[in-house]
This record gives sequence, structure tokens and C-alpha cells, in this order.
Amino acid sequence: MGSEEIRAEELEAGRFIAEQAAAIAAEVGGGLAVNALSGGVDSATVTMLGHRALGERLKTYFIDNGLMREGEPREIVELFARLGVRVELVDAREQFFAALRGVTDPEEKREAITQTFYREVFADLVRKSGAKCLLQGTILTDVDETVAGIKRQHNVFMQLGIDPEQAFGYRILEPLVRLRKDGVRKVAAALGLPESTYNRMPFPGPALSARVIGEATPERIGVVRQATAIVEQELAGVKAFQYLAILHEDRVTGMREGQRDWGRQIEIRCWDSVDARQATPTRLPHEVLERLAARMVGEVAGVVSVTYNITTKPPSTIEAV
Amino acid sequence: MGSEEIRAEELEAGRFIAEQAAAIAAEVGGGLAVNALSGGVDSATVTMLGHRALGERLKTYFIDNGLMREGEPREIVELFARLGVRVELVDAREQFFAALRGVTDPEEKREAITQTFYREVFADLVRKSGAKCLLQGTILTDVDETVAGIKRQHNVFMQLGIDPEQAFGYRILEPLVRLRKDGVRKVAAALGLPESTYNRMPFPGPALSARVIGEATPERIGVVRQATAIVEQELAGVKAFQYLAILHEDRVTGMREGQRDWGRQIEIRCWDSVDARQATPTRLPHEVLERLAARMVGEVAGVVSVTYNITTKPPSTIEAV
Repeated sequence: MGSEEIRAEELEAGRFIAEQAAAIAAEVGGGLAVNALSGGVDSATVTMLGHRALGERLKTYFIDNGLMREGEPREIVELFARLGVRVELVDAREQFFAALRGVTDPEEKREAITQTFYREVFADLVRKSGAKCLLQGTILTDVDETVAGIKRQHNVFMQLGIDPEQAFGYRILEPLVRLRKDGVRKVAAALGLPESTYNRMPFPGPALSARVIGEATPERIGVVRQATAIVEQELAGVKAFQYLAILHEDRVTGMREGQRDWGRQIEIRCWDSVDARQATPTRLPHEVLERLAARMVGEVAGVVSVTYNITTKPPSTIEAV
Repeated sequence: MGSEEIRAEELEAGRFIAEQAAAIAAEVGGGLAVNALSGGVDSATVTMLGHRALGERLKTYFIDNGLMREGEPREIVELFARLGVRVELVDAREQFFAALRGVTDPEEKREAITQTFYREVFADLVRKSGAKCLLQGTILTDVDETVAGIKRQHNVFMQLGIDPEQAFGYRILEPLVRLRKDGVRKVAAALGLPESTYNRMPFPGPALSARVIGEATPERIGVVRQATAIVEQELAGVKAFQYLAILHEDRVTGMREGQRDWGRQIEIRCWDSVDARQATPTRLPHEVLERLAARMVGEVAGVVSVTYNITTKPPSTIEAV
């Protein structure tokens, strides 16, 4: 499954699916494989691809790490049930929050999530399943950014020279690793995934913990989850690559009922981008920005200040952490 | 000099000036008075009013606390020289930065500046001058906000029941205390101050230290000074009540030359307001916001992310600290 880029405009989705399904079937042989579904287009595509290659011999888990968006775990399990794919929901919230306790450095945060995911939660599931293969939705942009040292993605062991079979006890297959996001969307559509999935906005591997600056406690994740729901409701009709809310650690002076309130700040980002490598802030109408701000301060506890990010990527990145 | 509000639309500037000048002359008698000029419209108006009442018997100081904007100390001294008022420039940068070392809480920051100003630097000057009266540019909004407990203004001792004669050794006269900003502007114009002064944007008492979240070190003040200069250049033609740049303490992930850069965030605020009691974010064109962001990341060391504040006051305040 080499690593040479397949550009979206050159991609023949039908042929790609047939080739990758055959490659997966050959790698897994008569055994079992497992994969973790996050609900994003990458892992959803791998789930469908693996299901096509292996049928019931692919076991798919949705791991609730406590860092997902409002209602997300249930919605995703139901969607795949409608597509004929059984997904097992695993509640691992306590394990993840225990690993994140006191962690503020972004790399340590990612590392805590990676280690909890692979060494604890998922390793356990793989062991119980008897599978020796893990299917994973790594795409080329993840590899680029990790190799360049920009962000440590949670799924790029091999490119970093880490052997997951030695480290974790299983082989990792990455059928999408030659694609970028636009290519994955074409494959997802061809696999029969609904548009709401293949045109779904990217969501980071470390989920909402990438959207709190500082410690990711259940309470702070709750705040950014509520802010995220508001952004997603208000911007649902906007054509943008990705939109998100970030909870700052900085506190700023505000006023509530005539009294000082040393309150929270929420930052909103909304990006225009083709493939996440470069991005510019969407020129949202000011009425939209003002309504977003009014809902944040009105509905999210303790918020007194809301900002909109106006930087390009680079030097910004899409997410803040 | 009672405390009942005089509304700008009812204010007769000429009569107000005559009355206040007479009151100042009566209070000071044959003695000397001093005042500190910050360059803002309030202290500039008090300087002109005091000069009209007392002539050379008013000694005016500009105290460089190290927290002023680019070039500001020199520009203000030169402006008043052209208006026939001698202003003595006092370099107190080391004293202020020493007092601010390690201070991150906003109230402690204000308090450190207040104490350094009144007890150390200014008390010394007053003592040397032999003056028993201090003229000060407190306006009604300062009093409201301090009494309400929103922000501790540095100049509202009497309203808080603190006797400055007992605490600091001199009497404080506040000739503008019945006016709001729009009233002060009318008086300033009538006193012959140039439009660049009386239409000058408000600037906070604690100066740039109100615009860094966290510790106000010389280095961090240098960063926000540079960001402030960019905002003031780019928005010079914009009709707004106030615009400013804030240096966050939070760091966010960015990219520089393909490498991760755990960088700084600058927040820009631009307010529409009549009197600072309520304010809404100015609907700046996106091209203007994008040019601001490009200059920040291009010119200010370590900045990878720039935001624009979209909240109303309340619950926000004009400044962040």
C-alpha cells in the first residue's frame, strides 16, 4: 500500500476500492481484524472498506473517550446500523480523563490519549477479539505533519519508525495513506456513505481535548462541548472546510449584572480550505459572528468574551492545541 | 465640585471652564498644584484647565512608567510645549517594572501601578514641589465602575472613602468628575486642545499592562506595544470609539517554515460606543482584519494566531484586564 500520493482528480474510486479491499483481504487472510470508528470521514471510510473486504470478520468499535461532541456516540452507532454495519460502543470515559488529569502541554495531552487508546482500551479489545490486524484511517496529511514535527497525530507510528506489532502487539493497515481529504471523500461517496458523513467536517483525533487550552477536565470539556454545539448549529448552512470553538485558559475581565466577572473566553475558528494544508478564515457576515457571540455569552456558563480567529494557516494551524 | 452628572448635550463648555477654573483657583489659593499628564483627553483637559486657573503655579509631569505606547512620552511633551505648557518628563520605568514583577492578577496589577504612582513616584514629586493639591482627570464613568466593583480605577480614592490627604499627604481635585467622555471632549475643544487630543481614543490608566494577560514584563510589554502600533496604524481611518491589541498568556500551536511553533496569540478589539458604558464590536471589513492579522504574524515576534473580539459590552469590558 505504498506511500506515493494519489491526487483526488486522478483517483478512480471504484478501482481504488477494489484494490484496497483485495489488499486488506490478502493481509488479514483467514483471521480477524478490528478497527475503531470515530465518526469522521477517514475512519468511516476505512470501516466500510474493511467491511467490504472482510464482512463479519471486521469488528468495529466506537470508543467513547468522553471527548466527543454532544450526542455523537449514539448517532454514529445508529448511522452504521442503518448501513448494515454493527458497531460496538465502548465507554472508556473514566480511563481517558484519568490519563488527562493535570496534563496541560499539548504534546503530553496527545500522548496521554494515544497511550490510553492503544495500550489500554484498544489493546484490550484487540486481545479479547483475537485479531492480529488493525485497520486505521491515517491519511497523507497526518503523515506530512507528523514527519515535519508540526503536530503528533495519533496514528502514524510506522512513519516514525515505531513498529506497532512490537509496541502494541498487532499490525496496522492504513488503506487511505496515499490520499488526502478530498480523495477520501470521493472514496466514501463511492462506498455508499451518506453525504453527511463524507462531507462531514474534519474533527481532531484528540477530539475536544484539542479544543481546550490547558487541562482537559470533564467540566472544561463540557464547556467546549456546549460551545461546539452552538457553533455547529449556527454555521450549519455555511460553506466552510471546518468550524470549531476553543476554550481558552486565559481569563478576561467581564461584567455580569453590573459586577465584575473574571470570566472565560471562547475563540471561534471557521476555515476555508481544500485539503487542510493551507487555510484562510471564512469571511462570515458580522451578523452571524454577533449572533454566535450572543449565544455563547448567553448560554455557556461563565463566558464573558468571544473572539473570531482571523489568521491564515500557516502560521496558524486549524486546531489550537 | 459636586457629583451630579452633567450631560454632554446640556454642557455649556465656556461656562463650565470658567466655573471650574475659579473653583481650582479658590481651592489652591496662593499655593502650588501639581498634576500628572498621561496624554489622554481627561488628563490633557485637566492640564489646560489647571493652567488656565493657576498659570505657572501648576506643575505638570509626564511620568514614563514603561507602559506607554511607541513614541508617546516624547510626542506628548512636544505637543504641550507647542500649547505653551511646560511638561516635565520623569523616567520611572524601573520602579514600575519592579513593582509588576511576578504579578498576574489584574487587581494586583492595578494596585501595584497605583501604589507605585502615588506612594513612590508622584508622592516624591509632590513633596519636592511643595504643592498640597493634586489635580486629577477622574470622570464619572471611572467612579461608576469602581463603586460597582467592575474595575478598580487608579484615581477614585474619595469615592471609596479613602482620604488621600491622610493616605498620601495631599488633596486631590477632580474638576471633570461630573462629566462623561463626550462632555470632556467638548471642554477639551473649548480649551484649544487639538482634535488629535480631544478625539483621541481612551487609553487605560494602567496603560499597556492592561493589555497583557499575565505578567507585565518589559519583554511582553514590548510585544503588545508593537501590536498596538500596528492596530493604530491600520485602523487610523476607521471611525470607532477605541481599538486595541491584547497579548494573551495562552499559547497555541502554529507552524513556521514547516515546523511546529508553540506561539503567541494577539487579540484585536475595536469598539463602537458613545460613552464606554455599552459597546459593540465595529463591523470592520474582512480585508482590514486580514491585513491586520498578516502584519501581526509577519512583524511581531512569535505571533502565530490573531483573533478579533466579537462580544458586546456587557458582558465584555472594553479592555481585557
